[in-house]
Amino acid sequence: MQANTFGKAFSISTFGESHGPAVGVVIDGCPPLVHIDESFIQKELDRRKPGQSAITTQRSEDDQVEILSGVFEGKSTGQPICMMIKNKDARSKDYGNLQHSYRPSHADFVYQAKYGIRDYRGGGRASARETAARVAAGAVAKLILKQQSIDIIAFVKQVGTLELPPDEVDYSEIEKNIVRCPNASMATKFIEAIDNARRERDSLGGTISCHINNCPVGLGEPVFDKLDADLAKAMLSIPAVKGFEIGSGFAATKMKGSTHNDEFVAKEKGIGTRTNNSGGVQGGISNGEQIYFNVAFKPVATIAQNQQTVDDQGNSIELQVKGRHDPCVVPRAVPIVEAMAALVVCDHLLRHNVYTRLASGS
Amino acid sequence: MQANTFGKAFSISTFGESHGPAVGVVIDGCPPLVHIDESFIQKELDRRKPGQSAITTQRSEDDQVEILSGVFEGKSTGQPICMMIKNKDARSKDYGNLQHSYRPSHADFVYQAKYGIRDYRGGGRASARETAARVAAGAVAKLILKQQSIDIIAFVKQVGTLELPPDEVDYSEIEKNIVRCPNASMATKFIEAIDNARRERDSLGGTISCHINNCPVGLGEPVFDKLDADLAKAMLSIPAVKGFEIGSGFAATKMKGSTHNDEFVAKEKGIGTRTNNSGGVQGGISNGEQIYFNVAFKPVATIAQNQQTVDDQGNSIELQVKGRHDPCVVPRAVPIVEAMAALVVCDHLLRHNVYTRLASGS
Amino acid sequence: MQANTFGKAFSISTFGESHGPAVGVVIDGCPPLVHIDESFIQKELDRRKPGQSAITTQRSEDDQVEILSGVFEGKSTGQPICMMIKNKDARSKDYGNLQHSYRPSHADFVYQAKYGIRDYRGGGRASARETAARVAAGAVAKLILKQQSIDIIAFVKQVGTLELPPDEVDYSEIEKNIVRCPNASMATKFIEAIDNARRERDSLGGTISCHINNCPVGLGEPVFDKLDADLAKAMLSIPAVKGFEIGSGFAATKMKGSTHNDEFVAKEKGIGTRTNNSGGVQGGISNGEQIYFNVAFKPVATIAQNQQTVDDQGNSIELQVKGRHDPCVVPRAVPIVEAMAALVVCDHLLRHNVYTRLASGS
Amino acid sequence: MQANTFGKAFSISTFGESHGPAVGVVIDGCPPLVHIDESFIQKELDRRKPGQSAITTQRSEDDQVEILSGVFEGKSTGQPICMMIKNKDARSKDYGNLQHSYRPSHADFVYQAKYGIRDYRGGGRASARETAARVAAGAVAKLILKQQSIDIIAFVKQVGTLELPPDEVDYSEIEKNIVRCPNASMATKFIEAIDNARRERDSLGGTISCHINNCPVGLGEPVFDKLDADLAKAMLSIPAVKGFEIGSGFAATKMKGSTHNDEFVAKEKGIGTRTNNSGGVQGGISNGEQIYFNVAFKPVATIAQNQQTVDDQGNSIELQVKGRHDPCVVPRAVPIVEAMAALVVCDHLLRHNVYTRLASGS
Repeated sequence: MQANTFGKAFSISTFGESHGPAVGVVIDGCPPLVHIDESFIQKELDRRKPGQSAITTQRSEDDQVEILSGVFEGKSTGQPICMMIKNKDARSKDYGNLQHSYRPSHADFVYQAKYGIRDYRGGGRASARETAARVAAGAVAKLILKQQSIDIIAFVKQVGTLELPPDEVDYSEIEKNIVRCPNASMATKFIEAIDNARRERDSLGGTISCHINNCPVGLGEPVFDKLDADLAKAMLSIPAVKGFEIGSGFAATKMKGSTHNDEFVAKEKGIGTRTNNSGGVQGGISNGEQIYFNVAFKPVATIAQNQQTVDDQGNSIELQVKGRHDPCVVPRAVPIVEAMAALVVCDHLLRHNVYTRLASGS
Repeated sequence: MQANTFGKAFSISTFGESHGPAVGVVIDGCPPLVHIDESFIQKELDRRKPGQSAITTQRSEDDQVEILSGVFEGKSTGQPICMMIKNKDARSKDYGNLQHSYRPSHADFVYQAKYGIRDYRGGGRASARETAARVAAGAVAKLILKQQSIDIIAFVKQVGTLELPPDEVDYSEIEKNIVRCPNASMATKFIEAIDNARRERDSLGGTISCHINNCPVGLGEPVFDKLDADLAKAMLSIPAVKGFEIGSGFAATKMKGSTHNDEFVAKEKGIGTRTNNSGGVQGGISNGEQIYFNVAFKPVATIAQNQQTVDDQGNSIELQVKGRHDPCVVPRAVPIVEAMAALVVCDHLLRHNVYTRLASGS
Repeated sequence: MQANTFGKAFSISTFGESHGPAVGVVIDGCPPLVHIDESFIQKELDRRKPGQSAITTQRSEDDQVEILSGVFEGKSTGQPICMMIKNKDARSKDYGNLQHSYRPSHADFVYQAKYGIRDYRGGGRASARETAARVAAGAVAKLILKQQSIDIIAFVKQVGTLELPPDEVDYSEIEKNIVRCPNASMATKFIEAIDNARRERDSLGGTISCHINNCPVGLGEPVFDKLDADLAKAMLSIPAVKGFEIGSGFAATKMKGSTHNDEFVAKEKGIGTRTNNSGGVQGGISNGEQIYFNVAFKPVATIAQNQQTVDDQGNSIELQVKGRHDPCVVPRAVPIVEAMAALVVCDHLLRHNVYTRLASGS
Repeated sequence: MQANTFGKAFSISTFGESHGPAVGVVIDGCPPLVHIDESFIQKELDRRKPGQSAITTQRSEDDQVEILSGVFEGKSTGQPICMMIKNKDARSKDYGNLQHSYRPSHADFVYQAKYGIRDYRGGGRASARETAARVAAGAVAKLILKQQSIDIIAFVKQVGTLELPPDEVDYSEIEKNIVRCPNASMATKFIEAIDNARRERDSLGGTISCHINNCPVGLGEPVFDKLDADLAKAMLSIPAVKGFEIGSGFAATKMKGSTHNDEFVAKEKGIGTRTNNSGGVQGGISNGEQIYFNVAFKPVATIAQNQQTVDDQGNSIELQVKGRHDPCVVPRAVPIVEAMAALVVCDHLLRHNVYTRLASGS
């Protein structure tokens, strides 16, 4: 069944393993006449690619996108868009010793148990390398959303125990620092913490916040394909994610209804809410306010320390992993969170069309 | 598009509004020869139904299930199972004043904006009454899971600011108190807090924890249909849910890899992990350990206090809601969380079959 | 998996068995604000119902539709529409002797083999009674198509060896005779042939033609969901259908390209074709010309003659079937063909919206 | 929406245009541990490729398959398999004059009307070149079916007005002649007819028959995803197909039930039928007998004669097409029919697993 496919109207299927010939994606459902700005897609891939800074993995991939179909004279044709990113710096020999070992908190064991076979080189299909394909597809989704003035901006809000104060978000700072923090001084602290973790041969977790601005009223569908439900699935499908909360999130559990309720008020653009504990989504449908949510990332499972584990026969072994890796995944995960959010919003934008045209025609 | 349908192999479609003739569900994909224990389905519905205790809404519905198809001589036939629950105590006149008003933090506004029409009586399709259909379908899923010894147990872990200490979970207590807390003394405090909220014409939020025990290794599919991603979507699709976390969840963001990693060890049943920060899921696939997750519920939006809001023309109004409602939704949401979890696990159990049989035959 | 679900944008799921409590359908994806004319739905059901004339089965069902959800004050709300038709005249005892027998050319054997269980009463799920649910859903689809002036008209073109000459189609005659033939004198001959077959305790096959008029250019999607491919699937999913051909159909195999090609010409409404061997569909997409296709029905499998067959142990037996049945299914199948065609066209009409709005907005 | 995706359990998505960089396919749902015999896939592609004989188009493509993912050490891993076939001999300049012309009975006009844009070079997405991707995917499906001893054999049964007598089918002859006819003397006549058509700058239609041998009982699902309904859709999705019939097909319409019914009898392998008018499928489910069906192909639309048509402004023009093309498509369509049949049967084989394992476990 289609486990590698996401979205119903704007539907993507990713393929590829970390050390195979390529990773890629097929978009089935891109509307025609969208200007496909290849340089924008490449720029998005560059934000995710390895080796981009001192605090990321040193695997060297230029992650060059090749568009194989669905684009003619710079525009989408309504036909499937296949984009391929070749794997170049795949040092599979680094992973030879993993053929019979199960790295702690990695997917090695479960893939082997489920399928009876796995491509163990560099994590195979479970590698975060697969997310390059998502970022490429997400870039196309962003191009569609931009036509509607919908913006999606994610940033690093927390690294380990360090957290950005809520009122210090300056979007223009995000891409100025290698940790993608919207505050320059906090960025310095985040980078220091990640550096320390690497020196200790350890890794850190963190939180990414994402804002969706200018989303129109009416996206999302009751009852199962709620906009926030689809965002939750999208985020939990990203490797290393352990949690998702929208609007007031887990803090809502401690609030009272009289405080939590978002009073409706008349605004210039139409009806809106005074507060936004709902996070821009009510009853699963966008209400025109800012959509914002948090995504929790666990510390990277691959660490340079020796670890106890078992081999595929169940024997205890001590494992040392030689592959290249990030000491903290959140800076590179920012474009991935944005891509998945863009895919969800674009999917619901298209889905919404199904109904509105006929309604207006009736 | 199929927004009211959930699950790919064990697929359900719910229908019905709060004050229409009935709510119900069609299961398309139930395997044949499952003993369909109607009394068990009814018992699950009774756990969710309104009016079951002093701390829930006093709407009186007996929520009697009628099986319309797909069952022959007590067994599933492999054909669609339709279950219907008639609405009886629907006092629509209570809601007449809502025709032109948008209740704060309710779905009234977004439904009207999206569809240009809404059944405003009792919240219509956005009412939690729809979840009765999910509980009925979830009960069938549980019957299938029971055959495989998979157990799903949810309970109330937090009400407002009161939280159950992690090591005080006694499953046998859960159904002994009206708040579904697995600890008797904490239950008393939860009930008192809810009673206070009601007296104050206010409402409370809370957290439900869910445990999935004896789940076999190998359920869940990379890369989008990860077991935890599907659980996240399932939970966020429940009305009033604002957050989801699995295993170490948001706490993982503050941990280091060396502490967070779950070391593999040989266990009697096979390979397992020493700790379980993963929450029983790695790389999106169950690893044989306990699956556990938390679900955050906001305080109920309907409160008996007067509230400021607008009408459908954008005029400011003061609103008083007369309908019956729960001051805290979590006690009745426990069977809903279990049902949605059962639907996800059952779906993946069936999906897993697709692959394994051929693999073993090869 | 969803074997009982049809359509991607306008999606229906049917449920129910011949002798269970009810048959019915859930429409997931009906746009809002469609006027749901219940009397029209009933009229369509009346065209299909048993006992409507001397040449159909004498099972007496009034096939009264009950709308359980998704309609408010006479209009669709965008929420799932569930329609239920109760079974009333279910004489299950007529079928008691079929519990262990496999009727020739019926589905008894394959259901038992596939599922290990079957509801043998009246054919259970394999009974054409399930098509009542399709007709109800198709009626809603027709209401949507009517808004766009799209008409769907089917009629009986052939009964046994008697065939209507191609140029004698008068739509206004179709519902004036019990055999639904668009030509009065041919209708008389068809009825006589069916009467003869019944007297001989035998049954006849036949062909239904269907015309889709005023279909706009652009419905249907390459490459798999071609409009004609979806029509073919829709028709072959009707019980007793053995073949489908569109436009020139099987006759095309004997033609040359120079004769078969449909020359484009300027017409008042825009670009059209001089001839219409394509049957209104080119490259899987409607071209604005009339869509027309033929559907081949085999003779009814249930006949009153004694037949040789086997029981579920493989023993040879002589079988006499007592149940009520039609000697020729085509007159009652006309509304079923129309319903399935309407579902396909409506689905593609909604699907087309996904793309066009954004395209025009770009 | 996913119009370029086919199959629910064994699901494929094709991409690519005639004159773009490549065509290809992603299989999402291939079970693990299938031996992926690349040389077999290539052999299947060679049967479809252009330029293979004197009676096919002289476009020269070696149609070399490249596997980009999902295969490790010669075996499928359960992850998506992407296969790519680069376009090499794409003479786009041949098609420059088609930018503003609508070729009769081609998809040029409807693509332009639907999408507002089209890749006009060589037919773009509507080109039969897309079917190379289907053949590659179908080859993988065949590898799975072979494990279960299921064979799929198609052949040319009719070319123009020449038809093979039904009892002269010798499978071993099919690949011995360039027209893929299972009878040597008939093959000569077919080839002569095609040669004549080419000399006359005209084209011919024809019929392909397909046999599915050793299909187990129980594949196919009521009510919409009947095996024959899915085969019908699969066949009508092939370019140039105008009709489909299974078993007795259109001939059934003239038969009586007493003659048409397939009497059940005890056979060595279990219960079977004496005759096989059903074509191996009853109630949409395979009954263990041979599945056989016919597919009608219209004459190729591209002919070397001058033709009247219109340009994109609706002006009458005389058109001469210079591109390379086949005078009769059926010889090269044989592997395409087989591929689509293999995809359907493989999909249902996997789908059947969902139910049977649990049933046997209950």
